[in-house]
Amino acid sequence: SYAAKGYTSDRVFAPYTVYKGKAAFSLSPCLPTFTKLDSGTVVVDRRGSMMMVFMHSIGERKYDWEKRQRFALSATEVGSLITMGPQDSCEFFHDPSMLSSNAGQVRKSLSIKPNNNGYFVSLTIVNNLLKTKDQFSVPITAAEFAVMKTACSFALPHIMGWDQITKQQSRGTDGIKPKGGSQVLDLEWEK
Amino acid sequence: SYAAKGYTSDRVFAPYTVYKGKAAFSLSPCLPTFTKLDSGTVVVDRRGSMMMVFMHSIGERKYDWEKRQRFALSATEVGSLITMGPQDSCEFFHDPSMLSSNAGQVRKSLSIKPNNNGYFVSLTIVNNLLKTKDQFSVPITAAEFAVMKTACSFALPHIMGWDQITKQQSRGTDGIKPKGGSQVLDLEWEK
Amino acid sequence: SYAAKGYTSDRVFAPYTVYKGKAAFSLSPCLPTFTKLDSGTVVVDRRGSMMMVFMHSIGERKYDWEKRQRFALSATEVGSLITMGPQDSCEFFHDPSMLSSNAGQVRKSLSIKPNNNGYFVSLTIVNNLLKTKDQFSVPITAAEFAVMKTACSFALPHIMGWDQITKQQSRGTDGIKPKGGSQVLDLEWEK
Amino acid sequence: SYAAKGYTSDRVFAPYTVYKGKAAFSLSPCLPTFTKLDSGTVVVDRRGSMMMVFMHSIGERKYDWEKRQRFALSATEVGSLITMGPQDSCEFFHDPSMLSSNAGQVRKSLSIKPNNNGYFVSLTIVNNLLKTKDQFSVPITAAEFAVMKTACSFALPHIMGWDQITKQQSRGTDGIKPKGGSQVLDLEWEK
Repeated sequence: SYAAKGYTSDRVFAPYTVYKGKAAFSLSPCLPTFTKLDSGTVVVDRRGSMMMVFMHSIGERKYDWEKRQRFALSATEVGSLITMGPQDSCEFFHDPSMLSSNAGQVRKSLSIKPNNNGYFVSLTIVNNLLKTKDQFSVPITAAEFAVMKTACSFALPHIMGWDQITKQQSRGTDGIKPKGGSQVLDLEWEK
Repeated sequence: SYAAKGYTSDRVFAPYTVYKGKAAFSLSPCLPTFTKLDSGTVVVDRRGSMMMVFMHSIGERKYDWEKRQRFALSATEVGSLITMGPQDSCEFFHDPSMLSSNAGQVRKSLSIKPNNNGYFVSLTIVNNLLKTKDQFSVPITAAEFAVMKTACSFALPHIMGWDQITKQQSRGTDGIKPKGGSQVLDLEWEK
Repeated sequence: SYAAKGYTSDRVFAPYTVYKGKAAFSLSPCLPTFTKLDSGTVVVDRRGSMMMVFMHSIGERKYDWEKRQRFALSATEVGSLITMGPQDSCEFFHDPSMLSSNAGQVRKSLSIKPNNNGYFVSLTIVNNLLKTKDQFSVPITAAEFAVMKTACSFALPHIMGWDQITKQQSRGTDGIKPKGGSQVLDLEWEK
Repeated sequence: SYAAKGYTSDRVFAPYTVYKGKAAFSLSPCLPTFTKLDSGTVVVDRRGSMMMVFMHSIGERKYDWEKRQRFALSATEVGSLITMGPQDSCEFFHDPSMLSSNAGQVRKSLSIKPNNNGYFVSLTIVNNLLKTKDQFSVPITAAEFAVMKTACSFALPHIMGWDQITKQQSRGTDGIKPKGGSQVLDLEWEK
């Protein structure tokens, strides 16, 4: 048993997982990567996302990791999720082969729909090339959805890369000095 | 009187405590521990929780620390608490001997129920082995519950270990480079 | 003009100030201090608060810093503030001489009351020893109150000292190891 | 492809951008700068803001960066934005030449107005000196607005400089020690 201290350069894996009778899914933030331009400015290279991984149940307390399926929620899709009210539903469509010659052949859809006091979280993957259809459906409670919303709200600025902006200590300043003290400056701004 | 600086490797104790006439309880986050796999990936070993500690009153401004009782809220139970509306109630049941030969002999239940404009927070522990029943009930105001909700929302990503994920600076990247500049990449993603 | 980097050991002053015609007030978090027990545990020594400072107007864009009055909101009082709805009001009473021989001689009250679409934030200080009464009243907009609520929600875990708990990397662990892998451990916990 | 680690002293650029048919806008936090007084206290020099940058569409997936227009939301304006309900609207007016001889000649207004289930975000700049009027209007979905609200709530304490206050480890203390243990101190405070 270790504390987290020594691991800052390692990959930390701490998904929020909901295990139910027929399937399970986990939720985990996936951080953006950055690239440095010739100008010295650092920009987002690959966008962050909230990664959902679904697994089928294959026995008591056993889930099929080999046949897992993934769905990466973009920042805007996370925005949909965190504003859902008790009776709201949402559905997202992804094409993993978009822009390739196989565009349109595989269709992934994630839906979240009201179910009693909670929700059904479902992933459907239709693959026209393989003639397959894979479906996962996990009923979750209102409390489990609350954890997802709170955790996604926490993670959203991180997957957007805004934590890197607010972490930076040094930025170019225009050398503007307050004239007549900061209180006057305050007042001018407030107008 | 010290500042916190020198203490990063010590155990910091800063519970939120509500003292009332017959009993008191405190609330404090309990962080997860991590373990490193052979692959180098760091995973959660022991899960974090929100620890509640209850004490009986034994005189004016005195509470019985010796006979305190604990109840550790899981992430999902914290999810229940932070979504409670003014007229909602919740109740959780734990068996500290679960999976041992004494399973079912001790039953802990924590309930939060509406009371005027606030709530009653109650812990009941029935021990069939010792033939005892211990009960704590603490009336709290809406303001005290608001502190609990805000503090629990802050702590939830930490007890889930997600702060360790978002703290990590370096992660394996696929070496994917934007084709045609980041603006085009943005647009492709948005589709 | 400097960046914040070099100042981590200095006192940083960044109040949120609302300047109005007759008076102004500023809001700023005041962090707790800690003390180390012989056991090595670090505990909160002096509690944190949200400090409000009121000043009378003494001319165009001038406020009387010399005769400013302070009111320190406790964590629970901050809890009241951040849960206030549009038509709610709240009022807090402090006695700065509490527990001294002058107890009851000075009475400070802070009230926040609905006013059109915003609020009136008022501080009244009655001093029976000096036979004085000092009063400040600042009308604020819904947007200004929203800043106060968001900033107070951000600051609350910090004035409670919980950011120090979640910052700590190393805590005593019981040496418990997962039996049969973390997936099984997950399931046991969920029960 | 790099990780963010090595860049803490560089300018990180990670705007949230909404691209639509006729125009696009991006949103990004702009941190405050600080200055050190002779007393050693560090105060905010230039206030932070949420920077919005608007661009016209000039072809498929192309936007005119050269003719971009900016609008910097103050902390209080961010407060307006994050409290907006589904049917609310808001409008802000800025004069970039305020306090100069050209005061009143250029008028910038930003409005956010309900549109189906989302909003219209519009920037209008009337320049009486150049006899020009520039207008941008971007329809956004409820999900995109949710991202803006969550990201702005995250960024607000940072643009106010409060993250610098809560980061500081050392502050002057009065040397007050608890009399009779921290539990008694707790009780005195609660009164």
